[in-house]
Amino acid sequence: MGANKLHWRVVLVRPRNPLNIGAAARAMANFGLRDLVVVKPYAPVWQETRSAVGAEGIVERARAADGLSEAIGDAALVVGTTAGSRRNLDRDLVPLDEFSSWLGSHRSRAANAPKRAALLFGSEKTGLSTEQMSYCHALVRIPTCADCPSMNLGQAVAVCCYELARAGALDSDLKNQARATAGRPPAKVHLSDPANLQPLERVLERAARVLDDVGYLKPKSRSATLVKLRRLLLGLGLTNHDVKILGGVLAQIEWKVRSP
Amino acid sequence: MGANKLHWRVVLVRPRNPLNIGAAARAMANFGLRDLVVVKPYAPVWQETRSAVGAEGIVERARAADGLSEAIGDAALVVGTTAGSRRNLDRDLVPLDEFSSWLGSHRSRAANAPKRAALLFGSEKTGLSTEQMSYCHALVRIPTCADCPSMNLGQAVAVCCYELARAGALDSDLKNQARATAGRPPAKVHLSDPANLQPLERVLERAARVLDDVGYLKPKSRSATLVKLRRLLLGLGLTNHDVKILGGVLAQIEWKVRSP
Repeated sequence: MGANKLHWRVVLVRPRNPLNIGAAARAMANFGLRDLVVVKPYAPVWQETRSAVGAEGIVERARAADGLSEAIGDAALVVGTTAGSRRNLDRDLVPLDEFSSWLGSHRSRAANAPKRAALLFGSEKTGLSTEQMSYCHALVRIPTCADCPSMNLGQAVAVCCYELARAGALDSDLKNQARATAGRPPAKVHLSDPANLQPLERVLERAARVLDDVGYLKPKSRSATLVKLRRLLLGLGLTNHDVKILGGVLAQIEWKVRSP
Repeated sequence: MGANKLHWRVVLVRPRNPLNIGAAARAMANFGLRDLVVVKPYAPVWQETRSAVGAEGIVERARAADGLSEAIGDAALVVGTTAGSRRNLDRDLVPLDEFSSWLGSHRSRAANAPKRAALLFGSEKTGLSTEQMSYCHALVRIPTCADCPSMNLGQAVAVCCYELARAGALDSDLKNQARATAGRPPAKVHLSDPANLQPLERVLERAARVLDDVGYLKPKSRSATLVKLRRLLLGLGLTNHDVKILGGVLAQIEWKVRSP
C-alpha cells in the first residue's frame, strides 16, 4: 500500500458548468485531496459556486491553466479518466477498482517512482479528446453500465477520489499541505527521476520544429503524428537525464538544419 | 460474492434540492440500480431535472412516499448512510469499503437471507435523524475526512452505488428489471423469510397503542421509547412467522385491555 502513495492533482479539462468545479472541489475535500487545476474554464466563476461547501480552501487555491501541459506541471505520472471503452487505445485501460494494483506494478517497473501524479477529467459532453489522452501514461475506466456509461463530472470525481482513498493511494504527508505550485520555487530536479511532462513537451516542440524543417510532417497528418510522437516519448519512461541529452541532440540538429 | 447479491432500492429521505434527485438517478443508472423512492420531496419537480441524463427511466418510475416505512416497502434489509461518526450508535457502523464483507456475514447469520434491501440517504443539511436511523439494521459510513465530512447528496449516492457494483453486491438478475412496486401485486410471503418492515411497523403500532393504554409510555419520552422499541424489534431478526404470532399476542392483549 505505502509504495502506491502519491500526491494527486485533479485536473479538470475545459469544464463547461462552473457548478461542477465546486462539486469536484467538495469531493476532493471529502477524501483528502487538495490540489485542483482547471484548464481553460469556460466561465471562471468557481469562487461563487454553492457546491463547494467545506472546500472553500481548495477552490481558493485552485489554479486556472491555459493548457494541459501547464496544468499537469510537475506531475510525473498522468492518468486520464474515461467512462466508455469505445476508443481503441494503445495504452493501459485500467478498471478503477484495479487501479491501486496497477499503480503498484507501474511504480515497481519504474527505476524511480514518481511522487506526484495528475488525474485528468475531460469536458462534460465529450470527455478527454484523443489529443488530451496522449498526455496520459494510463487511462482509468470507471466501470459504468453499457446503457448509461457517461457520469456526471462531479460524481465521477467523487467516485475516483473515494477509490484513491479506499485503496490507500494518497500520500497523507502531502495531502494536508497546500501545494499549489504557483508562486513557489520549482522543486529540485534529480537527474535520475522520471521526467516530468514539461521538459518532455519542450523536447517534443523542438522535435516538431526540426521535423517541420526537414519536411517530415505533412499538414494533413501533422497533429496526429505529433500525438503519436508524444505517446512514444511518454512510453519510453525517460528520466530527466535522458530528456536533457535528447534535448541537446535535437538542439544540435536544429542548429545544423537551420544554418545556411 | 454471489451470496451477497441483493436487489437494492435507493431511498432519498426529504431531499431539499430537486437537482439531487436527478443526480441520484443518474448515478444509479451508471452502476445498474433502478429502484428509486423519494420520501416527502420538498419540491416534486424531478421530472424536469437536467442531471438525470441517461436516467430518464429511473426518474419516471421513481415513487414518492409519504413516510419512510412506505418507502422501505418490501425490503427486508435496511441500511442507512452517514458521513460522520459523531452519534453514539447502538448498531453496526460499517465502513463503506467493508460493506460487502459485512453483508456476507449478516446474511450468513440470517436463517433466510433477504433478497431486497433499501439504502437510505438523509436530507442534505442534516442527514438521517435518529428516528430515521431506527429503521436501519446497519449504518454505512462513507470514509470522509474529519475536516470535511459532509458529502453532496448526489455524490454520496454515486460513491455508494459504485461500491455496491464494485463489491458485486448487486443482483444482476434483478437490476435490469423495472421493479417499481406501485401497481404490482405484492410478492408472495414466505413465513420463514425474514420479516419485512411493514408488518413489523404494524406490530409496533399495536404495541404502542397497548403501552399507551396501560400507561407505560410517558408523553415526554414517548417517541424516544418507540425508537428504542423499533431498534429492539429489528435486532431480533424475526421471521414473518414470528411477526404473525407477535401480532396475534398483542391483538389479544389490546382486546383485553380495551374491553370494559
